[in-house]
Amino acid sequence: MHIINLDANASLPPTEAARLALIQSLDLCANPSSPHQLGRRLRTHLDLARSQVAKALGGKDQDVFFTSGASEGNRWLVDSVLSTGKLSVWSTALEHPSLAKPLRSCSWAPSIEAADVVFATAAHNETGLITDWEPILAQINPDAILVSDVSQSLGRIGSVPDRVDAMVCSGHKIGAYPGVGAILLRNRAKRLKAPWTGGGQEGNLRPGTEASQLIIAFGAAADEIELIRSKNQDLKPLRDRLEGLLLQAWPMARRIPETGARLPNTSALALSRVNGDALRILVDQTGVCVGFGSACSALAPEPSPALLSLGLTREEARATIRLSLCPNTTELEIREAAKRLIALKI
Amino acid sequence: MHIINLDANASLPPTEAARLALIQSLDLCANPSSPHQLGRRLRTHLDLARSQVAKALGGKDQDVFFTSGASEGNRWLVDSVLSTGKLSVWSTALEHPSLAKPLRSCSWAPSIEAADVVFATAAHNETGLITDWEPILAQINPDAILVSDVSQSLGRIGSVPDRVDAMVCSGHKIGAYPGVGAILLRNRAKRLKAPWTGGGQEGNLRPGTEASQLIIAFGAAADEIELIRSKNQDLKPLRDRLEGLLLQAWPMARRIPETGARLPNTSALALSRVNGDALRILVDQTGVCVGFGSACSALAPEPSPALLSLGLTREEARATIRLSLCPNTTELEIREAAKRLIALKI
Repeated sequence: MHIINLDANASLPPTEAARLALIQSLDLCANPSSPHQLGRRLRTHLDLARSQVAKALGGKDQDVFFTSGASEGNRWLVDSVLSTGKLSVWSTALEHPSLAKPLRSCSWAPSIEAADVVFATAAHNETGLITDWEPILAQINPDAILVSDVSQSLGRIGSVPDRVDAMVCSGHKIGAYPGVGAILLRNRAKRLKAPWTGGGQEGNLRPGTEASQLIIAFGAAADEIELIRSKNQDLKPLRDRLEGLLLQAWPMARRIPETGARLPNTSALALSRVNGDALRILVDQTGVCVGFGSACSALAPEPSPALLSLGLTREEARATIRLSLCPNTTELEIREAAKRLIALKI
Repeated sequence: MHIINLDANASLPPTEAARLALIQSLDLCANPSSPHQLGRRLRTHLDLARSQVAKALGGKDQDVFFTSGASEGNRWLVDSVLSTGKLSVWSTALEHPSLAKPLRSCSWAPSIEAADVVFATAAHNETGLITDWEPILAQINPDAILVSDVSQSLGRIGSVPDRVDAMVCSGHKIGAYPGVGAILLRNRAKRLKAPWTGGGQEGNLRPGTEASQLIIAFGAAADEIELIRSKNQDLKPLRDRLEGLLLQAWPMARRIPETGARLPNTSALALSRVNGDALRILVDQTGVCVGFGSACSALAPEPSPALLSLGLTREEARATIRLSLCPNTTELEIREAAKRLIALKI
């Protein structure tokens, strides 16, 4: 049975450019901090990758710091807020667990207006809902540090407002390999303290030998960010077709969220009066790969807090299918996926 | 000019097995936490890698947790000690900066006997000095959690005493690629709390999508650990030859440490009355790649605290060359390296 990958938001298939860059990097083995020719040669490749990622983020090279992924980037920022001192935080209800959970240790502001640091993801991984920046920008304190996790938006809808002081992103969400990501720190975010100590890598901000091969591939994917975005924009009619077919066949299904701008590749459908666990098993047997909440929390017994915040019941949240199309998803695959899913006895 | 890599302790050239495993893994792209066929297929490869790394460490599969490298593993343990509560710590003076620096935030015991958690690296990265476990095992409290960073020893001298409760290691120090490592937690170390929250990966201990490609290559390198160790043992006569030639030519040089068992591939030579900065530049021009202290701290203005603890003056510590042979270093390269270094006007 042909496997149909509609789980791009969990991990995007790597681009050909990222794959090639990674393979070509396999002979560049050294420690980029080493003060000799082998180290320096590798360092120039990391400099190029930093510049490529900076450009994709709409920032400056020197403001970009490599991490092991968005989870680490989010934790870096939370630890940084905690170590800087009495900074109060506020976040949207749609943050990824890698941010939402560490944030619980922070001191929360009573309102967005009162917060010293505001966290607002640029797009919600589970539903594709795109953040409306206008009310956030209107409400935040002019001195507040504005942080955005752009993992899901970076390769799909482009950049965030200039007002954003810090960004967190992930390589494997834009067509590179998992295990690498970056944070961008500028303007007000420069007030944040470095929370971690150790080796002096990444401007003393992120100790640990750099994942050179993954960073080089990340740079190559970032270098094609406009192409990746354009391919994602082209997915919208396919996504709408699939969503339409399923909504027509499933009277118990509704689109989440019902209104609001969404990523062009993502459709979340909540099914009422359907057992979520049984649904996962049934869908899995069709060979159509979809998401159920965040992949990072796929084994969690609790329904997604983000989906509950959008008004779903616990049962609906557990029976919400996320269909997220890959840049190479074809019309034929969409028709076939719809056929297989509609044939399910749910 | 042929570049001679004598900086294995900074980063080992990857093994052919690791390289092949990484290339073969490039099509296994998914999120291993995803509850569908693509995710599960990848998960079986991570399970295999976990088993391979566990075997190399002399532990059980379920006690191994993947990290982004030894720096993160060390930070995990320190954060874990801090979050578990009032645990006092003690460490040797030869710990890597990625452990020694975070440890400064902990509450220190007045002696090794009084410590709740004892950190003892298995081998010192800068000199190759191998830890003598006897006095440590004789002195520690029976309930103390014993932690060892085995990054430098794992591929060279094999395993540590069974009494060790936690180990930290790094992929690129045993012939895999940088950006991946592991911690092993067993026995008393199970009392430590998980310090980080986020996605539920790695048994809820280490949030973040796994670096699948790097983990698979890490497993392949670990699977050949006996071969890597045997190759390293074979380096001892070459290392001794090089060291002998340099000590003969340089009357101002002495071997650090002067006594004590060392890793078979490592030689640290302290040069008296030599300017460390000038030395680095001169050595670099020979095309012989060597280390000066930890690569992670190569740009640090301060001399290595570990070398100072071994009785060196600040000037000697800054003028200490670390020669660390790679498994593929040849006799011809050793003769050529000695010739180039001896020709230097120092």
